[in-house]
Amino acid sequence: MSLTIVGSVAFDTLYTHEGTKEKIMGGSAVYAAIAASHFTKPSIVGVVGDDYHAHKIELLQSRGIDTSDIRREKGKTFHWIGSYLEDINSALTVETEIGVLGEYNPKLSIENANRDTLFLANNDPDSQLAAIQQSNATRIAMDTMNLWLNIKKEAVKAVVCKSHILFINDAELRLLGEHYNLIQAAQSIMNWAPSLDILVLKRGEHGASLFTRGGEYLSVAAFPLSLVKDPTGAGDSFAGSFLGVMTNTPWTIENIKHALLIGAVTASFTVEEFGPDGLLATTPEKINRRCQELIKTFPL
Amino acid sequence: MSLTIVGSVAFDTLYTHEGTKEKIMGGSAVYAAIAASHFTKPSIVGVVGDDYHAHKIELLQSRGIDTSDIRREKGKTFHWIGSYLEDINSALTVETEIGVLGEYNPKLSIENANRDTLFLANNDPDSQLAAIQQSNATRIAMDTMNLWLNIKKEAVKAVVCKSHILFINDAELRLLGEHYNLIQAAQSIMNWAPSLDILVLKRGEHGASLFTRGGEYLSVAAFPLSLVKDPTGAGDSFAGSFLGVMTNTPWTIENIKHALLIGAVTASFTVEEFGPDGLLATTPEKINRRCQELIKTFPL
Repeated sequence: MSLTIVGSVAFDTLYTHEGTKEKIMGGSAVYAAIAASHFTKPSIVGVVGDDYHAHKIELLQSRGIDTSDIRREKGKTFHWIGSYLEDINSALTVETEIGVLGEYNPKLSIENANRDTLFLANNDPDSQLAAIQQSNATRIAMDTMNLWLNIKKEAVKAVVCKSHILFINDAELRLLGEHYNLIQAAQSIMNWAPSLDILVLKRGEHGASLFTRGGEYLSVAAFPLSLVKDPTGAGDSFAGSFLGVMTNTPWTIENIKHALLIGAVTASFTVEEFGPDGLLATTPEKINRRCQELIKTFPL
Repeated sequence: MSLTIVGSVAFDTLYTHEGTKEKIMGGSAVYAAIAASHFTKPSIVGVVGDDYHAHKIELLQSRGIDTSDIRREKGKTFHWIGSYLEDINSALTVETEIGVLGEYNPKLSIENANRDTLFLANNDPDSQLAAIQQSNATRIAMDTMNLWLNIKKEAVKAVVCKSHILFINDAELRLLGEHYNLIQAAQSIMNWAPSLDILVLKRGEHGASLFTRGGEYLSVAAFPLSLVKDPTGAGDSFAGSFLGVMTNTPWTIENIKHALLIGAVTASFTVEEFGPDGLLATTPEKINRRCQELIKTFPL
């Protein structure tokens, strides 16, 4: 019952309505792993350059995250420069400095290959496929982004066809499912992706929905926040906490409902601060308390 | 305990992913009144040209809608030409033929002036203010659109300052509340609008949220539909059914929660068909059944 996360370990430079931050801790695998670390002991598979500070790795280790498959290469750490000034729900990539991520192919240790759950955080789909080929996981989850859907759609589809859980936002769902209607897009993907059991639709500040192959449909609002400093990592945190809490529990619909609440609420802690600070500062108790508050916003 | 609706009675020409319709029955007051007619006997105040078919007025009357304040003037009925091809959540106005609406100022009969609840459906804010001045309603509800916020913002604010309930979408809320954060925008409006008790945030296909002056916050997902033929009138139907069901009931938080569900579900019937056909075909029983189905999508 354990979770391996393959994805980016990065520096982020961010422009949001609440300020600008340069080269802070970021990366899809980092957000997902910290989120999951509230509920399980995840492992990261990724790469950093020789400019990546050792204390950041130690910070991850102090959270119980296994970092032995984070390789350090000569060169620069992947650096993403993004802006939310136009649209708070969708990051605009200003620039990327690919650095050591450019030449990297994930290499899973035996321990990571044998973990039950593999999460392919947002990354080049070819790299995601390479990770799948090395893994014996019984449950594969994935995320992606519009960039890969625009330039490598067939490779993304190949990853989806190997996955059991897909995390995706509304614009990406329309692209991948090739239908403007989100329900029909989700159904279309379920039709061509034989192993896909769960599709989680991330709606940004509007919440999230979940489709199961069995025809269940669930929806949750976003936890209401009067201050969103930095939306970066919200989706990764959602997925990481969802999978973290599900890693230690049977996949019943009751537990899936609970995980959906946990995902929405964990993401709310992430976006309250720049970088992973809000996510690091929260606790399972605080997360559960917000889940109860979120339930009170249901019109029941 | 009765409801007067002031707004447009129109012809709509529509471009959606599911087809094109020319000069069908439309208008904010028409959608709102038909939606309300499932729960109360509303009245419309508006204007049509001599090209408006008598059988459309008869159709409204057959629903128990009082049409005696729909004036018929020499000239053309207001004609709105809109497209949802770019964004299903937000209509693009291709063209408007203002017709008799251009010279019209609402004139409320004594009966309409004395009804408890006045709903100012989307319309020129000067026209909304003129209606308020004639009304003795104890409860005033209003809707607006980005057009008026862009060209007549101060007039819109004057209407909001006289209103108890505001229905607004996310982009409009950001414009009116002058903050990118929806919660802060809502709070800002509550701060300068002294009588505003309830703000309903319409999130399109992502559902709706409701803020009360007392600090309550509620959220509901949209009813999941795999076919949306025409989003026109969804917001008007939401508001009309919300107010229709609240017109006959005390304004407790329990009843407000119920009205929020009713609003979301009634809108779902509207968008399933072109024009008001879906709204006309539904029944309170069907609406209540969908409310129960919607509750089942809550992760509880």
